[in-house]
Amino acid sequence: MKILVINGPNLNLLGKRDKDQYGNISLEEISDNLKKEFPDISFDFYQSNIEGELINVIQLAERDYDGLIINPGGYAHTSVAIADALSVLKIPKVEVHLSHLVNREYYRQKLITAASCDGYVSGFKELSYGAAVYILMNISKKR
Amino acid sequence: MKILVINGPNLNLLGKRDKDQYGNISLEEISDNLKKEFPDISFDFYQSNIEGELINVIQLAERDYDGLIINPGGYAHTSVAIADALSVLKIPKVEVHLSHLVNREYYRQKLITAASCDGYVSGFKELSYGAAVYILMNISKKR
Amino acid sequence: MKILVINGPNLNLLGKRDKDQYGNISLEEISDNLKKEFPDISFDFYQSNIEGELINVIQLAERDYDGLIINPGGYAHTSVAIADALSVLKIPKVEVHLSHLVNREYYRQKLITAASCDGYVSGFKELSYGAAVYILMNISKKR
Amino acid sequence: MKILVINGPNLNLLGKRDKDQYGNISLEEISDNLKKEFPDISFDFYQSNIEGELINVIQLAERDYDGLIINPGGYAHTSVAIADALSVLKIPKVEVHLSHLVNREYYRQKLITAASCDGYVSGFKELSYGAAVYILMNISKKR
Amino acid sequence: MKILVINGPNLNLLGKRDKDQYGNISLEEISDNLKKEFPDISFDFYQSNIEGELINVIQLAERDYDGLIINPGGYAHTSVAIADALSVLKIPKVEVHLSHLVNREYYRQKLITAASCDGYVSGFKELSYGAAVYILMNISKKR
Amino acid sequence: MKILVINGPNLNLLGKRDKDQYGNISLEEISDNLKKEFPDISFDFYQSNIEGELINVIQLAERDYDGLIINPGGYAHTSVAIADALSVLKIPKVEVHLSHLVNREYYRQKLITAASCDGYVSGFKELSYGAAVYILMNISKKR
Amino acid sequence: MKILVINGPNLNLLGKRDKDQYGNISLEEISDNLKKEFPDISFDFYQSNIEGELINVIQLAERDYDGLIINPGGYAHTSVAIADALSVLKIPKVEVHLSHLVNREYYRQKLITAASCDGYVSGFKELSYGAAVYILMNISKKR
Amino acid sequence: MKILVINGPNLNLLGKRDKDQYGNISLEEISDNLKKEFPDISFDFYQSNIEGELINVIQLAERDYDGLIINPGGYAHTSVAIADALSVLKIPKVEVHLSHLVNREYYRQKLITAASCDGYVSGFKELSYGAAVYILMNISKKR
Amino acid sequence: MKILVINGPNLNLLGKRDKDQYGNISLEEISDNLKKEFPDISFDFYQSNIEGELINVIQLAERDYDGLIINPGGYAHTSVAIADALSVLKIPKVEVHLSHLVNREYYRQKLITAASCDGYVSGFKELSYGAAVYILMNISKKR
Amino acid sequence: MKILVINGPNLNLLGKRDKDQYGNISLEEISDNLKKEFPDISFDFYQSNIEGELINVIQLAERDYDGLIINPGGYAHTSVAIADALSVLKIPKVEVHLSHLVNREYYRQKLITAASCDGYVSGFKELSYGAAVYILMNISKKR
Amino acid sequence: MKILVINGPNLNLLGKRDKDQYGNISLEEISDNLKKEFPDISFDFYQSNIEGELINVIQLAERDYDGLIINPGGYAHTSVAIADALSVLKIPKVEVHLSHLVNREYYRQKLITAASCDGYVSGFKELSYGAAVYILMNISKKR
Amino acid sequence: MKILVINGPNLNLLGKRDKDQYGNISLEEISDNLKKEFPDISFDFYQSNIEGELINVIQLAERDYDGLIINPGGYAHTSVAIADALSVLKIPKVEVHLSHLVNREYYRQKLITAASCDGYVSGFKELSYGAAVYILMNISKKR
Repeated sequence: MKILVINGPNLNLLGKRDKDQYGNISLEEISDNLKKEFPDISFDFYQSNIEGELINVIQLAERDYDGLIINPGGYAHTSVAIADALSVLKIPKVEVHLSHLVNREYYRQKLITAASCDGYVSGFKELSYGAAVYILMNISKKR
Repeated sequence: MKILVINGPNLNLLGKRDKDQYGNISLEEISDNLKKEFPDISFDFYQSNIEGELINVIQLAERDYDGLIINPGGYAHTSVAIADALSVLKIPKVEVHLSHLVNREYYRQKLITAASCDGYVSGFKELSYGAAVYILMNISKKR
Repeated sequence: MKILVINGPNLNLLGKRDKDQYGNISLEEISDNLKKEFPDISFDFYQSNIEGELINVIQLAERDYDGLIINPGGYAHTSVAIADALSVLKIPKVEVHLSHLVNREYYRQKLITAASCDGYVSGFKELSYGAAVYILMNISKKR
Repeated sequence: MKILVINGPNLNLLGKRDKDQYGNISLEEISDNLKKEFPDISFDFYQSNIEGELINVIQLAERDYDGLIINPGGYAHTSVAIADALSVLKIPKVEVHLSHLVNREYYRQKLITAASCDGYVSGFKELSYGAAVYILMNISKKR
Repeated sequence: MKILVINGPNLNLLGKRDKDQYGNISLEEISDNLKKEFPDISFDFYQSNIEGELINVIQLAERDYDGLIINPGGYAHTSVAIADALSVLKIPKVEVHLSHLVNREYYRQKLITAASCDGYVSGFKELSYGAAVYILMNISKKR
Repeated sequence: MKILVINGPNLNLLGKRDKDQYGNISLEEISDNLKKEFPDISFDFYQSNIEGELINVIQLAERDYDGLIINPGGYAHTSVAIADALSVLKIPKVEVHLSHLVNREYYRQKLITAASCDGYVSGFKELSYGAAVYILMNISKKR
Repeated sequence: MKILVINGPNLNLLGKRDKDQYGNISLEEISDNLKKEFPDISFDFYQSNIEGELINVIQLAERDYDGLIINPGGYAHTSVAIADALSVLKIPKVEVHLSHLVNREYYRQKLITAASCDGYVSGFKELSYGAAVYILMNISKKR
Repeated sequence: MKILVINGPNLNLLGKRDKDQYGNISLEEISDNLKKEFPDISFDFYQSNIEGELINVIQLAERDYDGLIINPGGYAHTSVAIADALSVLKIPKVEVHLSHLVNREYYRQKLITAASCDGYVSGFKELSYGAAVYILMNISKKR
Repeated sequence: MKILVINGPNLNLLGKRDKDQYGNISLEEISDNLKKEFPDISFDFYQSNIEGELINVIQLAERDYDGLIINPGGYAHTSVAIADALSVLKIPKVEVHLSHLVNREYYRQKLITAASCDGYVSGFKELSYGAAVYILMNISKKR
Repeated sequence: MKILVINGPNLNLLGKRDKDQYGNISLEEISDNLKKEFPDISFDFYQSNIEGELINVIQLAERDYDGLIINPGGYAHTSVAIADALSVLKIPKVEVHLSHLVNREYYRQKLITAASCDGYVSGFKELSYGAAVYILMNISKKR
Repeated sequence: MKILVINGPNLNLLGKRDKDQYGNISLEEISDNLKKEFPDISFDFYQSNIEGELINVIQLAERDYDGLIINPGGYAHTSVAIADALSVLKIPKVEVHLSHLVNREYYRQKLITAASCDGYVSGFKELSYGAAVYILMNISKKR
Repeated sequence: MKILVINGPNLNLLGKRDKDQYGNISLEEISDNLKKEFPDISFDFYQSNIEGELINVIQLAERDYDGLIINPGGYAHTSVAIADALSVLKIPKVEVHLSHLVNREYYRQKLITAASCDGYVSGFKELSYGAAVYILMNISKKR
């Protein structure tokens, strides 16, 4: 099974940013930990700060992957364009957030991109990614 | 590890209700499947349609359990009282929803109880429960 | 034909409460009057102040009744949980209100439970119940 | 007893319009059915697409009728002028809607004209008219 | 091909009204220009200030015409009744506006009637009508 | 000096309607009193319940009158079409209301047509008309 | 007859301020003109920029005057305290505005103090004061 | 004098919950302190987490008590049903809150049940109860 | 113990104003009654209609008093400046209202100044002041 | 005449995306069809998913083109930056949408970029582009 | 060059108030520091807690000063009257705030008075004043 | 001292855009003027229309600069992603706007990115940049 993990703006800074909200490990460590924990799955990690580059990668995901995990960062709340790209994609899609959005600023309550995914996981720091893998694996088993 | 799984109003009807939204297996089957999948964990399932009874059970959870999974059903959007009960409780707490709330009625967008949990998982039908167990197990490992 | 008439919080006080809004006869008198006016129909009246008990009764209604009349009292405007229970029930359902909600407090304009019924009747004091019976009888005739 | 039944814009098209919402019988058939079902009552049916003509007829209703049934169609949600005309009229008034407004567009949730009636019935297709007659008959008996 | 062009309130004043918003030619000139530009199409122009008369004409349009162009003027933002009439009509329908609504008063941002058409054209003064004819002609060709 | 006084829906009922809000004299008496009080001015009174007929009369007013008084009744709060007609008219225009709008229903707080007049007078029962005449006379003197 | 004319903040600048909105004569000239036009009436003009001083004067008005004209300036939209003072006062009260509030900033649409007067006149520059005198004179005649 | 003190959901946890908001003494200690401070008054304390049970107790209070103190906890902001029960009750009623609601979450600003009491006291921790007793004693003296 | 009691605009009129809302005794009588009821406490009463004078007095209160009672009248809902002054003051502060704000106009629901006090008491007419003294005395005892 | 046609995010997927909304032909086919239908016009098609690249192209358009057609996709509803770029551009500009925005999600009702164009066409699938060309041609003729 | 620096309510307390928001130096020290830093400029500092006194001073500023700096304190968010006074004044005007308003209470987001200034500076504690002087000096140079 | 000046979309057009809002000098001239006025400071100017490129540059600023000035253009009101990037950066940050945002479109009132800066300056055209330099210099002196 092949999973693409797309990470939006500022997630390259993980580990430096506010640790109460985001945890204190970097995106690389999250990637390494997932590979150890789920050795049978092939992971590709992608990060960009540019909205349109994220759309480019989403558009191509269907060809090569069995599932998508996306942490859209700040674009989760504003990008109709990413939402449109996700809604075309037919593989299983899980949106993840490191922080617990419900307890943050009002403008993080509006979820534009999540509406084009199968569901979302929010609030468990790096475990949000692991839970998403758990979900994709089990969807895959049932098919 | 002992996990309490609290289920709110109408979840006793699972399997009869709108299958597109909720999946077609019953609460008992969810319970059985979790026990098979996670044999090292002890699960107690509780269901009630009565808001105050759910509060009674939440208040007692800390004594006997290492983690809580709660699917508050319709009370997720209205019950300040359940939110207050959850915020007193100090064990890890995961709110789960079978359906994808973001794509449903406007009055399901307001999340009152989730704000008193560590995070939430929404949209993956019975897999939402499994993902919650995955999360609680890993929180437990780190402590 | 068997009709279940469910009455929510404070309707046990009928006849004592503000008579301009609710009329001056009690729930028992409403029940007696309906039985006299519609001798061919069997009526069961149920009243509770507890949200979850009302849900319990709604869940069981399908087995024994051909139609449901519900006056949810104050829960009409707040209970997503009762709305969910009603939406599972497949027999004809009519929501009734004694008072004319359109002319009352703003928080009585939001109708959560009515959306899960076939329609509603509001404003005619005890006649709202009679009109509901008229409707259920005629739906039954057409089937 | 004499009842005037006023019907607003597009109700002359009944039977051609979206049948899920409005039922599949015409205004003439509703009129005929009511006359058969309630032979002791004299009915006059009036329909117009023009707001001001409806007001003209409402203003004259008090002289000749014992009760009014009004289905204001789309004007139910916008016409302060019809509401003003109804509030002057002292005979019993019932507003009816064929469709279940609570489950339709947001702009059908605002009820301007209903506030000037004694109450309203919504959602039971042609039965909404019959229930209104039932209510007017019983109000008349009590006087 | 026969096209009916319905014009709402105050469009009989065209050419006298604020020229920045509406352009400086009259409705008659628009009609004449369209007939010259599209000689193969038969046009009927109708104008009324009365909401219900517009509904009367819309209801009859299906019998005699292949397409409808409507400029509802001020009723575009308030008339649920015209919207209902349009939604029954099955021929292609284009709503046009001379002025650019997006840059005008807040109460011109709510589009009630456009929702019952196939689409709308706004902001190009008399060219909005021509563009609507272009669209109806091409829809007609594809059928 | 010639003044046209246009009265909207239900003002033909003046004297019968709620006297606390509107005073207890009829439109005819208002007309007679103005003619006695201002013998040098020629008044024409017009009343209609039909929105489009009011627009027709407004469109023609410029030709024959030096000033306009309009009491749009319920259309004051909903009619973009009357507002559009008024904004084309270049003679002085005063909107009057018998009742004190600020202390009435929320939907009477939105003033659509007043924005196309020079100003408005509200709350002084029949004196609102007299004050409007006073204003038009003085505007006329200054020119 | 004795009339008190209270003027709120910045009205001492009249004639210097934006002339399109407020006209080009000063408060003194308004006072002089009223005294010439209504020689039988005794006028006292008061102006202050201080909210509490305006309240002090309003509280004393009942003892010495038969009518009150108030132009509260910017306090019209914010001062609950002035509104409270006016509501205690039992003589006839007319609120006036020089400019046409309906066509100005959104925060000038909320009328707090007008609700405690008998009515208001808005938009006719200095004529708004004259119309208020006309109204107070006629109220006085009827008593 | 007999006073009933009704306490809503989670107040049985008092002393364990967030001490900044609620103070650090238990409901039992509050009860004991009141009895010592006001030895001439008879107090009955009742606590339940269940909305309908609170309604049951409120309905019976009139028979046996001279005054009611209610701390509805989280139901203060959501329960139309408790508000309805309180509005039937004719003895003096004081709503109390331990915490200062004005400085808490937005959903604690909406006060549904307080509108059916004579007034409310908020923010003084256990002293809110004492102040309520002070008020009921003095109301009682005046009668 | 020394308590300063600050009273805002129009409270000098107490006893003349609407007696249903405010009770029928004057501010002097409230002052006299408190002095009789609490002979060990020294009270200073201050009243002004001017916002800035109230701020001046609040700024000086810390030097000479052990507690503050403030009834800000209409400024409770609008004055950010008084709220700022109160938040600097470190002695215990209780806001009181004679009337029951929850049941009054919408613009009295916004509490700006209360947020800078320790809590508030609303609805018990003159008893609101007594309850505030009770609270300040008991806060003082605990220190 | 030279026309630049700018297409925003996800329009490169046309033909694969939801065909009910967008029609079933690709962007290339739209381009080819326009060139056949309007052989005298020179068209350049540009597509990008990246907001800033679209801005770059818009900024350069004035130099080489006589008219602009823009379908901003999801950026139509969020991009103040694209709106700013368009407002600098002085050639005629038409915004087009394939789908009928009025009948879609609430967040597609806000039109940010359209306000900087001359007008817009929405709802006619590929014909929206053709209508835009028709409009630009005719604007060009008049100059 | 002569600059008037007007300071609103509670700014006389500077140095005592919450130091995180406002910095820890007094208004006198700000005044002294500016005079040292800009020895060629003549500064007059004025402070009052009374809204109307601030208006009085603003009205007189034009006669004697070349520029105005205003920190309206809490009145920045509520005073239409101060805004009106500022809009009459023709010398350059800069509004300053010590604290960073964007990160404070929602009611500090509404800026009423700033709209009548040339611009504003917010968030840099005492440096906000210095930046305002820098701006006024440079505006002066260009003239 | 080294200062990075980041400029968002369309600021490369400065001097061509609406001169009332933005002034008539180009970004290059602003840069040159600052270098002349502050010869001891080293400035780097960066401009991009692409949201993600701005984020890339912000992320790197900490390494090489002592202070940041950012004019985010249209992204100021929509970009949660830029706000997140700024909040990680620990050097002093000043947001500047050439135009006076308070007097512009409603969608320019929401300030997303400013919340992650130390403060902002708005409305003084090119002087806004100079004031920001003044502020950064003085912050630097105090450290």
